[in-house]
Amino acid sequence: MEKAVLITIGDEILSGNTVDTNSNFIASELKAIGIKVIQILTISDEIETIKETLKSAFETGDLVITTGGLGPTRDDKTKKALAEFFDDEIELDEATFEHLRRYMEKRGRIEILERNREQAFVPKKSTVFQNHYGTAPCMMMEQQGKLSFSLPGVPYEVKPLVRDQIVPYLKERFSLNHIVSRIVSVVGIPESILADTIEGWELALPAHITLSYLPVGTRVKMRLTATGAVEELLNRQLEQEIQKLFPIIGDHIIATSEDKIEKILAELLDEKGMTISTAESCTGGELAKMLTSNSGSSKYYMGGMISYATEKKTEILKVSQKTIDEYTVVSAEVAQEMAAGCRELFRTDIALSTTGVAGPGKGEDGKAVGTVFYTIRIREREETSRLFLPHLDRLDFMHFVSQKILQDLVSLLISA
Amino acid sequence: MEKAVLITIGDEILSGNTVDTNSNFIASELKAIGIKVIQILTISDEIETIKETLKSAFETGDLVITTGGLGPTRDDKTKKALAEFFDDEIELDEATFEHLRRYMEKRGRIEILERNREQAFVPKKSTVFQNHYGTAPCMMMEQQGKLSFSLPGVPYEVKPLVRDQIVPYLKERFSLNHIVSRIVSVVGIPESILADTIEGWELALPAHITLSYLPVGTRVKMRLTATGAVEELLNRQLEQEIQKLFPIIGDHIIATSEDKIEKILAELLDEKGMTISTAESCTGGELAKMLTSNSGSSKYYMGGMISYATEKKTEILKVSQKTIDEYTVVSAEVAQEMAAGCRELFRTDIALSTTGVAGPGKGEDGKAVGTVFYTIRIREREETSRLFLPHLDRLDFMHFVSQKILQDLVSLLISA
Repeated sequence: MEKAVLITIGDEILSGNTVDTNSNFIASELKAIGIKVIQILTISDEIETIKETLKSAFETGDLVITTGGLGPTRDDKTKKALAEFFDDEIELDEATFEHLRRYMEKRGRIEILERNREQAFVPKKSTVFQNHYGTAPCMMMEQQGKLSFSLPGVPYEVKPLVRDQIVPYLKERFSLNHIVSRIVSVVGIPESILADTIEGWELALPAHITLSYLPVGTRVKMRLTATGAVEELLNRQLEQEIQKLFPIIGDHIIATSEDKIEKILAELLDEKGMTISTAESCTGGELAKMLTSNSGSSKYYMGGMISYATEKKTEILKVSQKTIDEYTVVSAEVAQEMAAGCRELFRTDIALSTTGVAGPGKGEDGKAVGTVFYTIRIREREETSRLFLPHLDRLDFMHFVSQKILQDLVSLLISA
Repeated sequence: MEKAVLITIGDEILSGNTVDTNSNFIASELKAIGIKVIQILTISDEIETIKETLKSAFETGDLVITTGGLGPTRDDKTKKALAEFFDDEIELDEATFEHLRRYMEKRGRIEILERNREQAFVPKKSTVFQNHYGTAPCMMMEQQGKLSFSLPGVPYEVKPLVRDQIVPYLKERFSLNHIVSRIVSVVGIPESILADTIEGWELALPAHITLSYLPVGTRVKMRLTATGAVEELLNRQLEQEIQKLFPIIGDHIIATSEDKIEKILAELLDEKGMTISTAESCTGGELAKMLTSNSGSSKYYMGGMISYATEKKTEILKVSQKTIDEYTVVSAEVAQEMAAGCRELFRTDIALSTTGVAGPGKGEDGKAVGTVFYTIRIREREETSRLFLPHLDRLDFMHFVSQKILQDLVSLLISA
């Protein structure tokens, strides 16, 4: 199997200012065509460092993909390092310059700066893949059957370059093995007990199928990966192994194909022909965002309300002022009335609500940071829960709570 | 200055299934105390690979932090690699076992499985930092004045371990240099023209101050980083350099202290005493989430509406059916009426609205995927814009649009 090394070049990642999402995208695209990423490196934007890293990457991998360090500014040094490493010279590539000229013209920039012109200079031996969403081209170099691709660092430019140009090129060029994965989502059983329970099953897995665990909130994802020449056969084998799990832990399995909770839920809602709406306070839109991140969500998601100010809970969601006075805004009672009001407002089968204190500052009513009440209302049935998560920072809190609600809803829908 | 290498151990990252957010968090925490991360590596969960990587990491860094590979399941191998690398043996640590027993007891797990007990086994020479949010302890090893810390991989466990235990320990132990950063946010000028315009200023920067560029959507962030012994002096020097930028590109600068657009906006709204609300269609809650991700947002953010179904736009936001029939749902006219209705509903100074097609499927009214109209309404004043972003995937689209709206709003508030 072809092995790949990904190199991210940029001090923005090393300084903790930016999260590297490119490597995740590239690794997942490569995996889908049977190329295994064996290492991901983030290094500093210095010529010597880049050259040394390229050297060690080519020792272990057949394919090296670098991102970053190709912008028009002084702090970008990838291209020089590339030319030096491959003992090559940099020269103006006419086709790339023409592409760049037209790209900028379309954006109303008639005059090309020297600095932009420099971006059309590439190593002589390189094959250029034109960038349709930015000014830095992608350059491919080849040495003894091994390949390197150098891409800019902007994710919006990386994605189309990889998806539309590099992946098709690699598929054409190599006869690749297939890698197929399935994720089994399990709830209500801690990782250690799960591992003990299925130990016999795990040890009996064929050698070309591997298992890994990933705890996500209160769910454990079991990933089964099979590698081989015939995709259809791999799919069949994975399905067989998953079926064997049901007699052992069937009660805990909530999904065996989709991975993300919002997709698992989408399938269930579609199957049952149910619609859903949200009324959020402390999750501030994250719950809605998770639901709508699934394409096709407009079929079942009717809308949501973010009632950040307390009076919006009474005015729009019809939570009674008496309930608020009696139990405070952050209470099971208010969560229940929010869900009921939300279901009325959007006329859906299901309504979800959250009210809590995301912190770091305390809520008005003195409830401790990290407290949240949420209600899942399915028609006339209702379930309200409380979580206390003082150790999570604001964004993690919003995400954890939203994940948990969707997971609980999935469990309820499955058991219903 | 102390140099650090971060090692992420786990096939979940290499396979593209999970984004590595731990490294970002750790790098940013270390930077704040003057420790420079020089390399971030993600490697496979194999004993030999882990040992080799530890070796090369100790050659270049003074401090090595690993995350992952410490769970109770069969696929985790970090601890074995650690013991072999440091020529040590693994034995049961009583204090750790006691901590673990109490941790599990608190969670209602009276009986401790053999598998969990294994987690209290650590290398003899290690110093243990107890994990209060999970079952895998953090182990510190020391060799010739160099340190390694091995942490579990779950972000919710990594954050408190680093923030509350490792960082205080490192601060105590080393007399560290300070690293101070400031971010200058610039809009309305492409990166290449910006770089040309400020070239003289950049070349005149003192040697201990470095500059890097990071384009984010249509904004360019310039990050200035100063390193030295006296924090206060560094702050003053950065301020001086930033002040020199104003005569050159002052018109384009939207912020010089806060980095995130939602924080820049928070300062402006606070200064002007204005409130804000949102009415979203195609951004599906992302805009609300960005606003509420800022702690203290309840001061100015009154709430929002996600009107995913068309009829909710008419019912709740009072968009007229006539406008929808005449111009379709995805139109400047509907965006305008949504903003006006939202401002009424939430009684805020400012209202933001979005309507568009996030894709990948086409919208009902046949508008092309990637089309979005958005309105910024500030009291009686209003600005509606259109974007066409067919190359962005669904989540990127939602995020890009939300970023752009907040950025436009900042520009409007500054120029007002």
